[in-house]
Amino acid sequence: MIEVPEVPAYLETVLLVLDLLGVFFFAVSGSLLAARRQFDLIGSVFLAFLAGLGGGVVRDLIINEDVPNAFANPLYLIPPALAAALVYLRLVTQGRLRRTLLVFDAVGLALFCVTGTRTALAAEIDPIMAILLGVATGVVGGLLRDVVANEVPEIFNRHGLYAVPALFGAGLSSLLWTLDLFNWLTAALVMVAVFSFRLVSFRRRWMAPHATHGSGS
Amino acid sequence: MIEVPEVPAYLETVLLVLDLLGVFFFAVSGSLLAARRQFDLIGSVFLAFLAGLGGGVVRDLIINEDVPNAFANPLYLIPPALAAALVYLRLVTQGRLRRTLLVFDAVGLALFCVTGTRTALAAEIDPIMAILLGVATGVVGGLLRDVVANEVPEIFNRHGLYAVPALFGAGLSSLLWTLDLFNWLTAALVMVAVFSFRLVSFRRRWMAPHATHGSGS
Amino acid sequence: MIEVPEVPAYLETVLLVLDLLGVFFFAVSGSLLAARRQFDLIGSVFLAFLAGLGGGVVRDLIINEDVPNAFANPLYLIPPALAAALVYLRLVTQGRLRRTLLVFDAVGLALFCVTGTRTALAAEIDPIMAILLGVATGVVGGLLRDVVANEVPEIFNRHGLYAVPALFGAGLSSLLWTLDLFNWLTAALVMVAVFSFRLVSFRRRWMAPHATHGSGS
Repeated sequence: MIEVPEVPAYLETVLLVLDLLGVFFFAVSGSLLAARRQFDLIGSVFLAFLAGLGGGVVRDLIINEDVPNAFANPLYLIPPALAAALVYLRLVTQGRLRRTLLVFDAVGLALFCVTGTRTALAAEIDPIMAILLGVATGVVGGLLRDVVANEVPEIFNRHGLYAVPALFGAGLSSLLWTLDLFNWLTAALVMVAVFSFRLVSFRRRWMAPHATHGSGS
Repeated sequence: MIEVPEVPAYLETVLLVLDLLGVFFFAVSGSLLAARRQFDLIGSVFLAFLAGLGGGVVRDLIINEDVPNAFANPLYLIPPALAAALVYLRLVTQGRLRRTLLVFDAVGLALFCVTGTRTALAAEIDPIMAILLGVATGVVGGLLRDVVANEVPEIFNRHGLYAVPALFGAGLSSLLWTLDLFNWLTAALVMVAVFSFRLVSFRRRWMAPHATHGSGS
Repeated sequence: MIEVPEVPAYLETVLLVLDLLGVFFFAVSGSLLAARRQFDLIGSVFLAFLAGLGGGVVRDLIINEDVPNAFANPLYLIPPALAAALVYLRLVTQGRLRRTLLVFDAVGLALFCVTGTRTALAAEIDPIMAILLGVATGVVGGLLRDVVANEVPEIFNRHGLYAVPALFGAGLSSLLWTLDLFNWLTAALVMVAVFSFRLVSFRRRWMAPHATHGSGS
């Protein structure tokens, strides 16, 4: 990785913006699911909040932050509200861009596995456990979205790899942090790598093996 | 609103009683669901606890109270046990009062969106976020009840408005608190308003718009 | 109960080992479910973590431990990983031992209702509430496993008693603790009793009554 001078003052702001973007992209996935299921606007707002904020709130509950970020900073209300509005106004639709939901979900995953790991590390969680929490930040919002809408979670659908890119991104983030190389540039590079990994795995139909060796293949 | 002299000593007790009543009404909704689904008495007790205590416990976890109220005060065990017993003994049934579940659920919603907002405000949560937590207190218990029973949550069924009355009640509670006008009388008035709003919206079949503009209408 | 000299130094280690065993057995139940549902290895690992660690994490969130045990001690990563590996390698299968899932689940239940109650009591939770948390530790992991896989939770299936043995074990543990008789021997005896109670109730098809008196019998 390229050595970049640390800019701690900026880093906080950059990571907040990236985290808010992650909330937005997952929130859109929530509202699009509500649209597909013919739920009403309230259900859309609800799933936007759940998908966008669920992962971070669960992470913050576990690392025992004072009050979860999402409930301490009113800025976190904006992305889910915006997401539901854009879906309502048909400015983001499934039809317009065939795989919108996939792409938005992948951006959210890429952002969250990095910001989630970093938040856990900043709270002095063990680097190995921080990886787990980074993955959780990335997958739990989408999981809650699907569970609450009574669907089999995306994470169990075998369309490319999902948790593996998140694990890769969280692991790399934790490693960079431990080596004191975590900054806005390396963070951005990891995010791009996770996003690409997710989409390439989808396109190429990469699959994890079955839960039991030799079954169904 | 009518100005009423504050009675802080009484207010705690009154709000505890109202909160326990909210637990009871939601708990009945849990046991009635268990009865409809032919679950056994254990499942009935379980759904009574989940529906009755779930919203408050999630709220307390988020505001990082020491131990959630429901686990700190043994009184909270009584309403769910009573609810399961009444449903078991057929003293509360779906058949006897056609819309029992609806009415009990509406009372629970009215009580919880007010007591939930107030609990968050008393824990020095930002007034805007307190509204969100008040709504969560009102809807999360029922949500968990439905998710655990593997049903599409009521909140997504378009039978009148549900989260909107809760939002109205939580918003009004937060406003009254900020204006220093929150007392047992104003709290009761807000509860009655939320209950009426919920039932009228059901009777008149008021509906929120779809998640996407123009679809299905 | 037989009086046994207390060995506090050993007790911590013994209970940690029993807790890790409980995680393992529930984790296997998660991976076996993933196998039955044809999920992939990632889903298997995910359900192993959720089933194995979910109950304890929810308990620890409620008793407001600093960081849940499972995220503070890397040892907790081993049992779910091992469980998913054993199921993947077909060293544990549904077919080989017809009721493997049942037995593993029963062992997990027996271990967790005792260690869960004890963890709550050690955190100075009220003995009555500690019983509730012990039962929750025992049933919540399996509940999350089933909810996330979009199945009606086992706890509502009327194949023998499930929550009743857990309640029996948690209640007995709390009583022994209060009487200052809780040690590794009495703990082990309670676990054996819970395990036997669960399996006998399954074999003999004992059933709890329906949620409403007189229905369906």
